[in-house]
Amino acid sequence: MSNLSLPRLAANTIRFLAAEAVQKANSGHPGMPLGMADTAVSLWHTFLKHNPQDPTWVNRDRFVLSAGHGSMLLYSLLHLSGYDLPLEQIKQFRQWGSQTPGHPEYGHTPGVETTTGPLGQGFSTAVGMAITEQWLAAQFNKPDFPVVDHYTYVIASDGDMQEGITHESAALAGHLELGKLIVLYDDNNISIDGPTSLSFSEDVRQRFAAYGWHTAVVDGLDGTAVTQAITAARAVTDQPSLIACQTVIGYGSPNKANTAGIHGAPMGDEEIRLTKEALGWPLDKPFYVPDEARAYLDTTERGAAQQALWDDLFTNYRAQHPAQAAQFEQMLSGDLPPDWLENLPQFETGSSLATRAASGKVLAGIVPHIPAMLGGSADLTGSNKTDVKGTGHISRGDFHGRYVYYGVREHGMGAIMSGMALHGGVIPYGGTFLVFTDYMRGAMRLAALMHQRVIYVLTHDSIGLGEDGPTHQPIEHLMSLRAMPNMWVFRPAEANETAVAWQMALERLDGPTALILTRQDLPTLSANTTAGAKRGAYVVSDTLAQNIHNREEPQVLLLATGSEVEIAMQAQVLLAEAGVGARVVSMPCWELFATQPQAYQDEVLPPHITARVAIEAGVTLGWERYVGTHGRVIGLDHFGASAPYEELYERFGLTATAVVQAARALL
Amino acid sequence: MSNLSLPRLAANTIRFLAAEAVQKANSGHPGMPLGMADTAVSLWHTFLKHNPQDPTWVNRDRFVLSAGHGSMLLYSLLHLSGYDLPLEQIKQFRQWGSQTPGHPEYGHTPGVETTTGPLGQGFSTAVGMAITEQWLAAQFNKPDFPVVDHYTYVIASDGDMQEGITHESAALAGHLELGKLIVLYDDNNISIDGPTSLSFSEDVRQRFAAYGWHTAVVDGLDGTAVTQAITAARAVTDQPSLIACQTVIGYGSPNKANTAGIHGAPMGDEEIRLTKEALGWPLDKPFYVPDEARAYLDTTERGAAQQALWDDLFTNYRAQHPAQAAQFEQMLSGDLPPDWLENLPQFETGSSLATRAASGKVLAGIVPHIPAMLGGSADLTGSNKTDVKGTGHISRGDFHGRYVYYGVREHGMGAIMSGMALHGGVIPYGGTFLVFTDYMRGAMRLAALMHQRVIYVLTHDSIGLGEDGPTHQPIEHLMSLRAMPNMWVFRPAEANETAVAWQMALERLDGPTALILTRQDLPTLSANTTAGAKRGAYVVSDTLAQNIHNREEPQVLLLATGSEVEIAMQAQVLLAEAGVGARVVSMPCWELFATQPQAYQDEVLPPHITARVAIEAGVTLGWERYVGTHGRVIGLDHFGASAPYEELYERFGLTATAVVQAARALL
Repeated sequence: MSNLSLPRLAANTIRFLAAEAVQKANSGHPGMPLGMADTAVSLWHTFLKHNPQDPTWVNRDRFVLSAGHGSMLLYSLLHLSGYDLPLEQIKQFRQWGSQTPGHPEYGHTPGVETTTGPLGQGFSTAVGMAITEQWLAAQFNKPDFPVVDHYTYVIASDGDMQEGITHESAALAGHLELGKLIVLYDDNNISIDGPTSLSFSEDVRQRFAAYGWHTAVVDGLDGTAVTQAITAARAVTDQPSLIACQTVIGYGSPNKANTAGIHGAPMGDEEIRLTKEALGWPLDKPFYVPDEARAYLDTTERGAAQQALWDDLFTNYRAQHPAQAAQFEQMLSGDLPPDWLENLPQFETGSSLATRAASGKVLAGIVPHIPAMLGGSADLTGSNKTDVKGTGHISRGDFHGRYVYYGVREHGMGAIMSGMALHGGVIPYGGTFLVFTDYMRGAMRLAALMHQRVIYVLTHDSIGLGEDGPTHQPIEHLMSLRAMPNMWVFRPAEANETAVAWQMALERLDGPTALILTRQDLPTLSANTTAGAKRGAYVVSDTLAQNIHNREEPQVLLLATGSEVEIAMQAQVLLAEAGVGARVVSMPCWELFATQPQAYQDEVLPPHITARVAIEAGVTLGWERYVGTHGRVIGLDHFGASAPYEELYERFGLTATAVVQAARALL
Repeated sequence: MSNLSLPRLAANTIRFLAAEAVQKANSGHPGMPLGMADTAVSLWHTFLKHNPQDPTWVNRDRFVLSAGHGSMLLYSLLHLSGYDLPLEQIKQFRQWGSQTPGHPEYGHTPGVETTTGPLGQGFSTAVGMAITEQWLAAQFNKPDFPVVDHYTYVIASDGDMQEGITHESAALAGHLELGKLIVLYDDNNISIDGPTSLSFSEDVRQRFAAYGWHTAVVDGLDGTAVTQAITAARAVTDQPSLIACQTVIGYGSPNKANTAGIHGAPMGDEEIRLTKEALGWPLDKPFYVPDEARAYLDTTERGAAQQALWDDLFTNYRAQHPAQAAQFEQMLSGDLPPDWLENLPQFETGSSLATRAASGKVLAGIVPHIPAMLGGSADLTGSNKTDVKGTGHISRGDFHGRYVYYGVREHGMGAIMSGMALHGGVIPYGGTFLVFTDYMRGAMRLAALMHQRVIYVLTHDSIGLGEDGPTHQPIEHLMSLRAMPNMWVFRPAEANETAVAWQMALERLDGPTALILTRQDLPTLSANTTAGAKRGAYVVSDTLAQNIHNREEPQVLLLATGSEVEIAMQAQVLLAEAGVGARVVSMPCWELFATQPQAYQDEVLPPHITARVAIEAGVTLGWERYVGTHGRVIGLDHFGASAPYEELYERFGLTATAVVQAARALL
């Protein structure tokens, strides 16, 4: 070992921590850490600006391991650089309760900036972080005060390069000239199925050049070369950089290097022994960390000094630019400005307004007063009503605007928004059609898993969009989103419920919210809906009749969301004419309702009233939760059609008459 | 008009049919047909080999309008070239019951090869068609008998280029050197939000060159130039071709050409009038089709002659290669070979096998006997068990294999499989992890909408995958797929149910099937499960007790799917020890069960037995349909964790003990 350079010594330390942790867990991906250790050491030793003692320092460089299956590379780096991740945790890799899960999980391990594993997500999330850095810098930096000034580094794999989401976010990153985004691409020619030549022969560098990136190629096993390439990449300030690091998967393993066999399975004790022999590593010291290696990667002192320097900078900034400093801290805090709620519109009854239009009015009211809000749309701005006049948009070289034109890139947008939320300082919202959540579920799920405040503006929420037809008409999407853990799904019935939905989404600090909005106009009910909608479901209106106990109460409950609340109201009138008392319950947010005290839930949906009809322009599956065994659901368990929407509602039986018939059949 | 060339006359006919149909519908996208009419006329007049009188002719060229919002371009072409799509249908654009829905829908309009609209899907589906053409050609063509020999043409838009799915399928198309795939890219610099410069500045040709494509750029308003470019592209036989056709969106419109305003909204009567003036079109003839224009595009004679020529070719082929001809026709018929079922494995009780492994054994048994089956995986072959030893895989220049290495490209794989099924001659199946259906739902939905037989092999179906953790553990996916109309979701409990699932998926002719399979071993129940599983749900086992009517019957129903059936069986034993009679019902396919006669459904789930406990390692939402108001569901309404799977089941309460407790609480 004495003949090893320090960088190689540190890299080999990582190699064997990874190999041994995977072996002990009997599960994991040793090949990637073995291949990329030298590259990672170069980045972390020489460049990465971070303070292991304060993983929340706002001006730290962000490091994203997009190839999340190589998690042991990251855990080793965190351990060795001084994070609160003891060796004992490395030994507990992939075990219940450990801080070292199979793939890196945000919020679970200090220093992990984002949850990765599903390929392409990390890369795209990093693009969101880099946009945020540049956006905050544009707002806040002053001459001599670069208070926001950090890089975003990514390690990505062949698999990341193949995923569509990476194409989307890389193209946008190139378009926006994100000069402080640097991607180290583990170019090792092996994926799980075997050599990448089985399916992957594109010229990755040429592709990224086509996006407007600076590209380079380097021997990823040569730390010095990597260091030079990163230095060069940092010097390119108006292009993101892709450095193709040519490596050997499972480097050092005599029998498994450069094979798919070492990608996703433990090496075996014997092969680890042989690898140790080949690399001159002591055979009898499991989880061995040479002092020199630890010293080489330990960043506690440097990091503390860097943060102290920045603290001084910010103190002086606060002195010279107190208003900006206060706003910066306010935005970073994640809290909403104290007066924001005054600007949330209330809507008069009697008007008629699509909920997407109401959402647009809400945004026009609040965006100027919540400076952290950064909007956007996947090329459906006019349809989603996501822009706010006069606030501008970001473009290459000018990041002062409040809006991102994401292009037709739903999945990329989703992950980029997660990156913005993770970076901090931004409350991202972005629009597309509800049906295209099919394109972005991967990113939405990670936002939910990471508890990030991301707001999806999903318009054209049913067959109510009409003529565009079944390819554009969501049927199963509403229920599919309700099925996602930790996702709030808000489908307001009218304008004031829409304002509530925005309020709840913005005030929610522990997860994303999907706002499900109509294309078509809906009558505004009443500003009194507000209190009820905040509880997820509430009684909009009761008509009473005498029940068998001579109590005045509704005989039937009509449950609906969104545009179908209007139909339920019409049915209520028809039922009243027939002497039947009906209660209309609007249920804009099931998740919120489920958190209400049982007493409130029973007040809204009295358990003894089992005659219940639900109506929603989507699949019926799931509504049994609220209508019970004896209820009926009027919905759509088939695809839609292309025609004016009024005719579709009629043809598909989503009518007040159908509700009345169902209700009467139950009584 | 007399000074117009015939191609331009035909193009202008299309322009005004499109503009007027959109105007009459008061909804639609006129800009694209106006821009691309000349390019389309060049392709359809000069190159496209098809027979409007027989849209099912197997050797026709495939034409895919990936930019499906420009549907009126396609409907105009179909009408003018002689398909059974009368002018009356053009006038009924986007109306209920018409053959001219807002976006092209397969099965709805003669000559529409695939449903498009969600961007990128058409492009990727076309890649599947082109793979199929080359695959069938490799199997069946003989010297002097090119029985499979056609092109696949695509018109794609800026939006298609931005979508990730297009990246995935374009990269694979380049890798496989699909020389007979030719994409005409409507390079018009406008998308819905405005000029593409807002978000889209990549060099598309350079990107496609990086994928290994032949590329060209041409004035898309100059039909002669387009014709030359297509001729050149056809001459390139070992690369797919991208021809960037530089056009002007809304060409001819004095005030709206080259603006986003003409992308997705009617032009207005006045602007149509001005456009007619500008292009010298008669003002007083709505939906005007000059005879010369119709004659120029009419392909009925040429098409019939081409098909007759091919019929002769195939007659001679049959004479000289009778076995191959018979197999070709068998594969094209969509039927399964008569003897295939003999090769479906049966599994002995007493063994223990992951359902993914059982699926692998099923494939090993049947793939050699069903020559139309073409398998694949998105780089998880070993995990999905989708390959069959000895059958080979397709690679550039050699398409004889039975397997496609799709790379890490789930969404592309999904759409490519739809294209294979649509082309005919192939029964595609492809694997990934269940959690990654989040990446491919867009394509799965279109397969369901198009009623295509596509089989998704979705392994690692729950927290049962263990250490990979929450990013890889599906929670909501099973129920989200059940919510999708026309998708069969089959989650077998063991090996014999797995064989049934494959049988039902293969015998299903009107839609896709998702096979949901475990990573972990499960005990094989009995070959007798077969009959029950075919009905979607069945009684696996009963233990009886005397009820209050002195009838011997189970007191509680235990409902489960997949790996949780084993837990229900364990609970049944524990309950029996406590004197409680329990019925275990396995429900591998809800969709199939719902189609059974009510009597059978009631036999399996007797309505009077309301004590019901369901257990499934996924969200509980939706199970209320079967457990009713009085039942209990044991599931997971939160994300998973990284640990060995046995521990996860224990920690998350998915245990026989929990089932017993729930059952006893109900009694």
